[in-house]
Amino acid sequence: LKNPIITLTTDFGNRDSYIAQMKGVILQHCPGASVVDLSHEIAPQNLMETALFTEAALPWFPPGSIHIIVVDPGVGTTRRPIAALAGKQLLLFPDNGLLTLFFKRSPIEKAVVIGKCPFIPDRISCTFHGRDIFAPTAAWLALGNVLESLGPQAEDLAVLPIAEPSFKPDGQIEGVVIHVDRFGNCITNLRDQDLPGNAMVHTDVSADLLPIRKTYADVHEGEILALLGSSGRLELALRNGNLASKFGIGSGHRIVVAPQ
Amino acid sequence: LKNPIITLTTDFGNRDSYIAQMKGVILQHCPGASVVDLSHEIAPQNLMETALFTEAALPWFPPGSIHIIVVDPGVGTTRRPIAALAGKQLLLFPDNGLLTLFFKRSPIEKAVVIGKCPFIPDRISCTFHGRDIFAPTAAWLALGNVLESLGPQAEDLAVLPIAEPSFKPDGQIEGVVIHVDRFGNCITNLRDQDLPGNAMVHTDVSADLLPIRKTYADVHEGEILALLGSSGRLELALRNGNLASKFGIGSGHRIVVAPQ
Amino acid sequence: LKNPIITLTTDFGNRDSYIAQMKGVILQHCPGASVVDLSHEIAPQNLMETALFTEAALPWFPPGSIHIIVVDPGVGTTRRPIAALAGKQLLLFPDNGLLTLFFKRSPIEKAVVIGKCPFIPDRISCTFHGRDIFAPTAAWLALGNVLESLGPQAEDLAVLPIAEPSFKPDGQIEGVVIHVDRFGNCITNLRDQDLPGNAMVHTDVSADLLPIRKTYADVHEGEILALLGSSGRLELALRNGNLASKFGIGSGHRIVVAPQ
Repeated sequence: LKNPIITLTTDFGNRDSYIAQMKGVILQHCPGASVVDLSHEIAPQNLMETALFTEAALPWFPPGSIHIIVVDPGVGTTRRPIAALAGKQLLLFPDNGLLTLFFKRSPIEKAVVIGKCPFIPDRISCTFHGRDIFAPTAAWLALGNVLESLGPQAEDLAVLPIAEPSFKPDGQIEGVVIHVDRFGNCITNLRDQDLPGNAMVHTDVSADLLPIRKTYADVHEGEILALLGSSGRLELALRNGNLASKFGIGSGHRIVVAPQ
Repeated sequence: LKNPIITLTTDFGNRDSYIAQMKGVILQHCPGASVVDLSHEIAPQNLMETALFTEAALPWFPPGSIHIIVVDPGVGTTRRPIAALAGKQLLLFPDNGLLTLFFKRSPIEKAVVIGKCPFIPDRISCTFHGRDIFAPTAAWLALGNVLESLGPQAEDLAVLPIAEPSFKPDGQIEGVVIHVDRFGNCITNLRDQDLPGNAMVHTDVSADLLPIRKTYADVHEGEILALLGSSGRLELALRNGNLASKFGIGSGHRIVVAPQ
Repeated sequence: LKNPIITLTTDFGNRDSYIAQMKGVILQHCPGASVVDLSHEIAPQNLMETALFTEAALPWFPPGSIHIIVVDPGVGTTRRPIAALAGKQLLLFPDNGLLTLFFKRSPIEKAVVIGKCPFIPDRISCTFHGRDIFAPTAAWLALGNVLESLGPQAEDLAVLPIAEPSFKPDGQIEGVVIHVDRFGNCITNLRDQDLPGNAMVHTDVSADLLPIRKTYADVHEGEILALLGSSGRLELALRNGNLASKFGIGSGHRIVVAPQ
């Protein structure tokens, strides 16, 4: 590997030195690494946002890319640090379910608990496994070492509870909101490929059936719309408004899609 | 090209996965690329801010750098995706005028409409040409392919309407504000090289003629000043205040410069 | 050096084109450089925050890394631009004390005033030495040139006034708050290695002696705690609150640590 790619996705922000420390550790052990910031602005400790982010972003990377994902409310507890291979990507993350959606698309081929790794220091911070465990492990893998060198196989990885769409005999598909983003858009568990052609969306916040739009600009300001986001999930939104707060919608809210 | 440079300038912010997806696509097709973030914090859909940003930043890059600039209110409409060569830089952008100022300094040598490119997927998102058109085209060019391989010559590129300074027989130079930044500083269409030595600025918001200062610290708090910003444009500002909102100044506001 | 590492730490933010211009200059002169963002979100002109940031971040980088640090209230005055070697890192910075804490850990081995450098342009902006002095000098060093090529030895570098801990005969250690971060956490001049085992913290904002915690989660909401931050400094904090504003604590506030 000439310039191995190591990406970083965290909720650390860019004001503190956390990310800088992680980059230092990676480059110390693997000076040729190409370190790529994906985001450090994940909403603090928000595992579902992390799951949606990684589902959307990681599939685009070349095989063999190494991804560190640290959104880690359980740091310092017994939750396990994991290294896994899925969809030809190498993934380093705390075992808290943050890759649940990515793994639905790209099943895990191999996963180990990160135990020993020559680059992990003897003394490990209780609160900063990004620097002391995940960064050195990424450098170790970037140098061509295999997952098996890190520790025993990991069983029973944590998963976020995400309802599956329900396909009815009459052609209706029932879904639920799984995330409300910071604009109040409501992202559902229904994906592009789940939907029939000419699908219409039934929701209790609109008397009308909603066609699936291509872009916000397809409706007027203040109007409710259903659209497929660029990552292929059905979303409900209010053009230039906050749908979730206006109608009190949260995760679990039910919507139904039916062929026209 | 060993490590071709591909820069990114957008209004996407860093919380969503858009930038991450674009980086993935670039690296998927050209794993050796050096992907450089310029800014993802351009004010949403602000073409004039983008024009000023790119005018200031792009000339510093080495010949052959590839720049993706995506501030794209017209995404999904018929506006054309363009690839151009100017000032020895390769530029990928929606045809909406966002490089108007850069092209005044560095005239277009070649421009094509991006049509076919083997890296562009068959199915293209209506709302995310950054990922589906501009990122793959950047990787394609980074591998050494030529502009002509992308499509037919582009005629009549869009330009932002920006008044030219007016040079009077008596030595006075009339300019206008072309952008108000987020601090209320008023940036004009007058550049360093337009101004006489010992120039003084006449403006209706100050009874005094204003000399051209080197830095904010040259005046007291609450005082109005004229200065040349680091990119060489004449600006009006209020030290530690918001000039534009205090005096109701917007784009088009007239100022006059004269030799002392 | 195949892909020399050049890091950037500034208070410039990411909306303006300053960072983009600096990256352009670096890559223009040294296209193979690996340019690494550490932070551009340092609190404007805050030298103590910069000192803490760099103390925490820089020691993790590989020998020979080049670090540009520009937080520069004195730009345009006579303060000197410095290039130094310490802790095997090459450091470029304005002479205002921003590396005081780093240099306590890693004493300066060599320091020069940046005078001549073939990459520095003839005409230098008064307000943007990051682009016109520090970036070209970093590229110059990245190509293998030595510090001595830049100018005469620098004597009497500026230092921030930071009290040393006071070790009492009875085993008590007196320290002071040296920085209040944006969350109101109070960072002290006491470091991990200064503290005895089973240390307890005496402070006038708490009737109780405080044990040194490992993480915020070790106390209840609204409770005061003492902990060692991930960079090894003793901090006082209020869980989910702002300690400094609640009790009016600022830099210089005294705390005492004693063995249990």
